[in-house]
Amino acid sequence: MTSLKIIFANNVKAIRQDKKLSQEGLAYVCKLHRTYISDIERGKRNVSIDNIEKIALALEVKPYELLIKK
Amino acid sequence: MTSLKIIFANNVKAIRQDKKLSQEGLAYVCKLHRTYISDIERGKRNVSIDNIEKIALALEVKPYELLIKK
Repeated sequence: MTSLKIIFANNVKAIRQDKKLSQEGLAYVCKLHRTYISDIERGKRNVSIDNIEKIALALEVKPYELLIKK
Repeated sequence: MTSLKIIFANNVKAIRQDKKLSQEGLAYVCKLHRTYISDIERGKRNVSIDNIEKIALALEVKPYELLIKK
């Protein structure tokens, strides 16, 4: 079973790339650090619900969409 | 706008009660502390994605279902 961290990682990366946003750009909109976004996209961070909400807002999707396996 | 923490809190509580599970019971299945479950259900915890996954597994729902506003 794919862990939820990996599902989240893959979704954030795919949607960010669809929007032609760099990791720096996404980090800037979220007010998070670029290395934190990079870690998230590699499934290395146990991201919090507040940060899931910030990232979803920045990517203009509903938070739950980031947890659905594609 | 309802914060994601509050949406998660309300969903966990509603599904737990539907399943006639106590906070202690849910905590036991999740291997988390009862006071942590209590805090989550009051929207007081910035819960991590790993714990969202544990709680969803214990409640027998998909993690994303816990982030959808009812």
